[in-house]
Amino acid sequence: MLTDILKSALSETGIKAYPRSIMRVIGALKQTGDFWEIVDISDEPLPLVAYILKKFIEKGIVRAKDNELVLTEDLEGEEFHVHRCIECDGRGVVIDDFRKEFETFMELQKNRPPAIRDYDQGYVTHLTTFSRIAVADQKGDLRGKDVIILGDDDLVSIALGLTNLAKRIVVLEIDSRLIDFIKKVSNEYGLDIEAVVYDLQKPIKEDYVSSFDTFFTDPPETIDAFRAFIGRGLVTLRSPRCAGYFGLTRRESSLDKWIKLQEILITEFRVVITDILHNFNVYVNWDYDMRAFELSPVDSKPKTNWYRSSLYRIETLEGFKGYNDEITGDIYVDAESSTT
Amino acid sequence: MLTDILKSALSETGIKAYPRSIMRVIGALKQTGDFWEIVDISDEPLPLVAYILKKFIEKGIVRAKDNELVLTEDLEGEEFHVHRCIECDGRGVVIDDFRKEFETFMELQKNRPPAIRDYDQGYVTHLTTFSRIAVADQKGDLRGKDVIILGDDDLVSIALGLTNLAKRIVVLEIDSRLIDFIKKVSNEYGLDIEAVVYDLQKPIKEDYVSSFDTFFTDPPETIDAFRAFIGRGLVTLRSPRCAGYFGLTRRESSLDKWIKLQEILITEFRVVITDILHNFNVYVNWDYDMRAFELSPVDSKPKTNWYRSSLYRIETLEGFKGYNDEITGDIYVDAESSTT
Repeated sequence: MLTDILKSALSETGIKAYPRSIMRVIGALKQTGDFWEIVDISDEPLPLVAYILKKFIEKGIVRAKDNELVLTEDLEGEEFHVHRCIECDGRGVVIDDFRKEFETFMELQKNRPPAIRDYDQGYVTHLTTFSRIAVADQKGDLRGKDVIILGDDDLVSIALGLTNLAKRIVVLEIDSRLIDFIKKVSNEYGLDIEAVVYDLQKPIKEDYVSSFDTFFTDPPETIDAFRAFIGRGLVTLRSPRCAGYFGLTRRESSLDKWIKLQEILITEFRVVITDILHNFNVYVNWDYDMRAFELSPVDSKPKTNWYRSSLYRIETLEGFKGYNDEITGDIYVDAESSTT
Repeated sequence: MLTDILKSALSETGIKAYPRSIMRVIGALKQTGDFWEIVDISDEPLPLVAYILKKFIEKGIVRAKDNELVLTEDLEGEEFHVHRCIECDGRGVVIDDFRKEFETFMELQKNRPPAIRDYDQGYVTHLTTFSRIAVADQKGDLRGKDVIILGDDDLVSIALGLTNLAKRIVVLEIDSRLIDFIKKVSNEYGLDIEAVVYDLQKPIKEDYVSSFDTFFTDPPETIDAFRAFIGRGLVTLRSPRCAGYFGLTRRESSLDKWIKLQEILITEFRVVITDILHNFNVYVNWDYDMRAFELSPVDSKPKTNWYRSSLYRIETLEGFKGYNDEITGDIYVDAESSTT
């Protein structure tokens, strides 16, 4: 009965739907009527979830009432049961050793510039930011190391600066509001962060090439943007066995896209994936209008945090390479995008 | 001064040493004098760690006293600081929902057959076994699903049977002692596990091909054995978007081997890696003599759990394939092996 959705999804949305995609949306519908939570629970790309729900509504399987989605038939769906550790919210790390720095961060970030649509911004919870530091420290990627952050709406540079672990911290970021804020905080707290307004569409300048041990970035999730951002991160690393950290969602990237990205990492860049931590990065809901609102089958704004991403850690090996070509044209939107 | 170790390691051990390998061994030496803990902390392959330490002893940088290894100079090493969540031991999941089943498991496993060298056995802690169930349940891979376990010295089948989540549980295992034990428990507790003595060197029989939603296995860590075991797991799966779980260590697999294995997954099998959870699997120390004892630069047996592996979760996509050729010859040992 639902096979027509499988067939039409690809041509209508550009995203392949699997029977399991539908089963997961049904399973999520059994737990919540909130569109954003259904996207979150099902872990299928938002435009695909929106399409499946729209088809369900057309077929009368789902009724939209007061912007809540209700399943009208008892269909078989995937069952989800959460066993996430409450103590660490499933991340596996705690930030106890950085409690003081965390409190300071909480206070000073109140004056941060808000996320804006121009640069595809949107930032993670403070706990996420510090948990990243905890993971990277546990891996030996921070203490005494030279660290670069490519795009920093999450203010990783400030969190890292407050902990005083790294030898050097450099931020390249296109948004001068953020750079000004980071500089101001850095001066005020003596964090010694080098913050530079930088358009990452341009190649990485010689000054930053092969100069760092560890990079953090959060790439837009098209194939081309991923290659460019991770590729630039790799260009900044000085040798084999250096580390890179970045996020990748299921919200805007299907598993079919994931495998393409993994293939780029492994066969093109020759870096190994050492960790993939599901739902590690939790985003604070942001204000600006975005494609997701147009796609939503109901007129509701997110009430809970629903936008999450997996934290990837990669490590360079002998013969690794990056990507430093200039980027031209719009490489930030594909069929699976929804937050631009 | 240590560049000669970098040069000789590959020819002497067959494993590439990076400067960071040495830095990590030095960092670990600053935390402990126990050989097994140094392997654990450094996360470098055991034979390489043993080689580096032997060279250090020759150079007088390390002294072995009462089977404890002591750094005699203040060398720069990587710094490790643990931020692991105590509540979930860094796994991100808790087993609270399975507490009763866990207690039962603890009790009944007391009569399990001990691990023997013949089949490269060695099993994980009970908490590890149940944490695997928790992760897989959270992913929607168990409830109402058909699950196969290829090799089961960890008794995943029994743990899963006790929770009563799966629709069908099949175990293929070469060790008739284990099969007898699983059958006995299954009868006694009404778990309905199909346990079959099976040599996984032989191809998977038609009965089990394309018949399952989820597999668990724990492959020996040579390239050929990995391809064969994971490949057979994939052969049992019925469609795209099915899941597989397996462990991969750093103890017996360098990151250079990891990338080869990841390349097999992605380019040869066309499955996507959705999760890599570091040190998720913790092994109980086992009794039999193994190569690791010969390699150890000191004459000490492990006092704490030191053998861990990452939990991988993979998902099949359109066009995935497995590997079902018969295996001949010894494919279980390579330069990085130490527990056979």
